[in-house]
Amino acid sequence: MDITAHVSRVVADSQVFTGLCTVFVRHTSASLVIQENADPSVQHDLKRWLDDLAPESRPWQHDDEGTDDMPAHAKSAITRTSEVIPIVEGRLGLGLWQGLFLWEHRRRPHERQVIVHVQGEGTS
Amino acid sequence: MDITAHVSRVVADSQVFTGLCTVFVRHTSASLVIQENADPSVQHDLKRWLDDLAPESRPWQHDDEGTDDMPAHAKSAITRTSEVIPIVEGRLGLGLWQGLFLWEHRRRPHERQVIVHVQGEGTS
Amino acid sequence: MDITAHVSRVVADSQVFTGLCTVFVRHTSASLVIQENADPSVQHDLKRWLDDLAPESRPWQHDDEGTDDMPAHAKSAITRTSEVIPIVEGRLGLGLWQGLFLWEHRRRPHERQVIVHVQGEGTS
Repeated sequence: MDITAHVSRVVADSQVFTGLCTVFVRHTSASLVIQENADPSVQHDLKRWLDDLAPESRPWQHDDEGTDDMPAHAKSAITRTSEVIPIVEGRLGLGLWQGLFLWEHRRRPHERQVIVHVQGEGTS
Repeated sequence: MDITAHVSRVVADSQVFTGLCTVFVRHTSASLVIQENADPSVQHDLKRWLDDLAPESRPWQHDDEGTDDMPAHAKSAITRTSEVIPIVEGRLGLGLWQGLFLWEHRRRPHERQVIVHVQGEGTS
Repeated sequence: MDITAHVSRVVADSQVFTGLCTVFVRHTSASLVIQENADPSVQHDLKRWLDDLAPESRPWQHDDEGTDDMPAHAKSAITRTSEVIPIVEGRLGLGLWQGLFLWEHRRRPHERQVIVHVQGEGTS
């Protein structure tokens, strides 16, 4: 799920011109990643690739919450829980093709909480 | 090793109410990860999984410091060296099940240095 | 490419004594990693290992930009887009063996943009 627009709005509302935007996901089976926002097949490929790196078929010990739970923790461990994006001239300093994604690693959708923290100076 | 309580104490002592806590590990064969703090089998599974992703049996070129050294660098490269956690109402804004772990990737325990940096505003 | 000296110079020029240095790469097929700066074979081993984790031979759907493009996105997704390094006594608080590397994941070299943001207090 591309959350770039949500986070950009928080930055715009803050009126910070130069500073930092910190994004933090409060879960261990969902995570953040900055990836290409143009071609959806990039997301498809990344998902399939991580599925193969951390397959449900592996004999995980922790499986009380379902066979997709431990793979979700594993995928979250090697992607990002926090991401810090500089604010440049009042906007997120992302590259042209970069989008910030909240990555749900469980099979069923869950409600997820993300903290967005903005700091810096507000003049132009 | 769950270092959440140590870092929480630094945040409490700082009397920062709203801000950021940055944690940084000064090593390349140990790393940080935020993971589930409830069931120890999650940690067991993650360790076994990373062991399989970066096995000691691989023909690593760099092995002067032992066969477990290069796997430790690899595991550290795909987990975290720095983690930034927002401070919300005077506490780390972690989710209910999140713990901050210092992950030793060498077989023998090493003494490890972690920097905790706190900033923000102190009013309530 | 070891960019530690470049970033250290920015920190020195800022005259910040205690604070944070945030480094952000504006691309999704190059990334940051803090790794051992002493023995070049560590970098060689890491590169070979990531090549095997995300091989060009995998049937990636997204291949318009070449067979090395999607592996580059995958490698970038599991390393770092942002890294935050505390500034301690006017210098990057890196460990003795730590270097900050900009990791080009495409086969051909690309021009890459990195944002370095420094904040903190300047007294000694």
